[in-house]
Amino acid sequence: MALYNQHFDSLKDSYLFSEISRRVAEYQTQNPDKSKRLIRLGIGDVTKPLAPAVVTAMQKAARELGRAETFRGYEDSGRGYPFLREAVANYYSGFNIKIDSEEIFISDGAKSDCGNIGDIFAENNTVLVTDPVYPVYVDVNLMAGRKIVYAAGNETNGFAPAPDDSVRADIIYLCSPNNPTGAVFTKDQLQKWVDYALKNSAVIVFDAAYESFIADESLPRSIFTIPDARRCAVEICSLSKTAGFTGTRCGYTVIPKELSVSDDLGNKKSLISLWKRRQGSKFNGVSYPVQRAAEAVFSPEGLRECRETLAYYRENSKIITDTFDRLSVTYTGGKHSPYVWFKSPFSAQQSSWELFDYLLREIQVIGTPGSGFGGSGEGWFRLTAFGTHELTKEAMQRLEKII
Amino acid sequence: MALYNQHFDSLKDSYLFSEISRRVAEYQTQNPDKSKRLIRLGIGDVTKPLAPAVVTAMQKAARELGRAETFRGYEDSGRGYPFLREAVANYYSGFNIKIDSEEIFISDGAKSDCGNIGDIFAENNTVLVTDPVYPVYVDVNLMAGRKIVYAAGNETNGFAPAPDDSVRADIIYLCSPNNPTGAVFTKDQLQKWVDYALKNSAVIVFDAAYESFIADESLPRSIFTIPDARRCAVEICSLSKTAGFTGTRCGYTVIPKELSVSDDLGNKKSLISLWKRRQGSKFNGVSYPVQRAAEAVFSPEGLRECRETLAYYRENSKIITDTFDRLSVTYTGGKHSPYVWFKSPFSAQQSSWELFDYLLREIQVIGTPGSGFGGSGEGWFRLTAFGTHELTKEAMQRLEKII
Repeated sequence: MALYNQHFDSLKDSYLFSEISRRVAEYQTQNPDKSKRLIRLGIGDVTKPLAPAVVTAMQKAARELGRAETFRGYEDSGRGYPFLREAVANYYSGFNIKIDSEEIFISDGAKSDCGNIGDIFAENNTVLVTDPVYPVYVDVNLMAGRKIVYAAGNETNGFAPAPDDSVRADIIYLCSPNNPTGAVFTKDQLQKWVDYALKNSAVIVFDAAYESFIADESLPRSIFTIPDARRCAVEICSLSKTAGFTGTRCGYTVIPKELSVSDDLGNKKSLISLWKRRQGSKFNGVSYPVQRAAEAVFSPEGLRECRETLAYYRENSKIITDTFDRLSVTYTGGKHSPYVWFKSPFSAQQSSWELFDYLLREIQVIGTPGSGFGGSGEGWFRLTAFGTHELTKEAMQRLEKII
Repeated sequence: MALYNQHFDSLKDSYLFSEISRRVAEYQTQNPDKSKRLIRLGIGDVTKPLAPAVVTAMQKAARELGRAETFRGYEDSGRGYPFLREAVANYYSGFNIKIDSEEIFISDGAKSDCGNIGDIFAENNTVLVTDPVYPVYVDVNLMAGRKIVYAAGNETNGFAPAPDDSVRADIIYLCSPNNPTGAVFTKDQLQKWVDYALKNSAVIVFDAAYESFIADESLPRSIFTIPDARRCAVEICSLSKTAGFTGTRCGYTVIPKELSVSDDLGNKKSLISLWKRRQGSKFNGVSYPVQRAAEAVFSPEGLRECRETLAYYRENSKIITDTFDRLSVTYTGGKHSPYVWFKSPFSAQQSSWELFDYLLREIQVIGTPGSGFGGSGEGWFRLTAFGTHELTKEAMQRLEKII
């Protein structure tokens, strides 16, 4: 008799975004006159088109696949073509981090690898996540039957919690700039996590999906800014936000050659060898035209075009944070992140969902209630910078009127 | 301390294709004069370009992503756009199988889903595979710690083994037309597997990646040709061989609404609900331009263009099987499959690797030794129909001279 994986019973249904949709739909039905006024600043998805250099590269690659002389079948390694792995390595060297292209694995996105990396770890590992948290880290590890512990973010630590030596963890998920809080770890803060991981022989899974929003060169865009991290961390990154690839699907994972993990007798295996074996049996690489499109992101024109789009989103963040500064609303994020995470300014007792309903009812602005990302998010709220200037301004003007 | 998944210790390194490469490279070094004569009929990869309709669709989609008005970000469901799921459902209806588009899940290829499907099953399931076997089914289940049992294919059963009621299995991988043997299950044979699965509450994972090579309408292109299969089977398919998508990456998985699996107390969950939950946390859908390209495969022009390519490969199969018929060499496959699987005609004692070396040395033809696919493949050998007419003919003429 086939048995299902009972760890799935411990998962919550994904209530957050479906509950948001439900409440918005209900509001629209009851208030058809106000539906046109709705401004959606809740979704973590980009809105600007792909850069021209990227589109051109993808079209050229499609043409290549249509001609016998330039057709390509299976990518030999499934790890990504050398042209793209080298482009990524070169991108890293642009912020003074040396990664060998053999340490880079091209993926169909950060979310896939945040989950798939779990295949190479034993069930019997304790996973630490920060709270509030991108729900994927929790769900993929619950599915695998792992115990999860939380490091609470809060106003005092600026939603950048530090490791606690009294807590044991074997695998640590960190996201910086953070989804949902927009908080960015400083070098010193990251160094503490690296020290903790080395002391505990833990592995850090560092999600750098929002690194391109970092505007201050003194802030780390990669965990490998900390040299010791090469012995304890993998980094997972994505072109989803950097280059608008949410629907195009391409990311990359960096696994340093130095990184190894043990079996329960202390025998070590390199993480690269485990990952290659996993990918060899469960993945066949990313679509060739998508890899060419991704290569174009890292070309001089591609980088310039993507920077323009990032500047556009950053301007939205500024519209939001300028408003909050003026109104003395407490927030994190925004400066180096497309997310602004703010504390309900209306009442110390107002829950995230109460604020959600209030903003929907009073000013027709849709955000994401912080409690949807974990207990430490209660009373907080996320707005995103992926809208248009016009609607972001309009939303902030409406907000200003009711505070 | 982070522990690695020790089930990886039970995996063999993928010796087969790397060993082939090693022996060929050694031969080339020792016989530089003969290197130009090498004919490669070992690799399971297509060689003909994408159909023009497919290239056009992909280019159009890339253009759409480059314009604000037609840009698309995340695909809401990650299950595949309705336009593609409906195209697949319509393709099935073309051979009289009714699949609801809600039962179709678009993937980045059959290999990924053959592995990923394991996430929704408990570790404590016994997996049955036929032998010889596509190594992926074995490796992904060894990684997950599952016990594997084998149903031996051989000359007597035409490499289409039947279920054995004395063997207990919970998850059954079947591949028809088979890789590597090219054998195709008849309806009666498939019915026996479906009966066995229903009797044992087992789930069949049916790999139909080569269905488009079936030329005889009386042979099942889908396990859902057997109506009862809707209660015990999922079907995994791919455009890799149907439409040359090995480097473009797109496939689909069909999960019937009726299919449910139990926990160890006998409580049931629908497989669709488990799979949606898995995909929701570990996958974000297939690249939009790739989905548009896949949609074009199922358009009238796309189907016509792909059929022409399939006819080309089929002609290669015929060149090979005509030669074997003439020489009275024992084989399976070829008629409804791009693989011809033959028994060493030189000596009953000749191993697959001895035959490999013999063909390389004497006639410079490269195939794949059958023992690489499992113990039951010993003494057998795989040739593929993915070469050119000219080289396939030349290889067969050379073979004919030495038999």
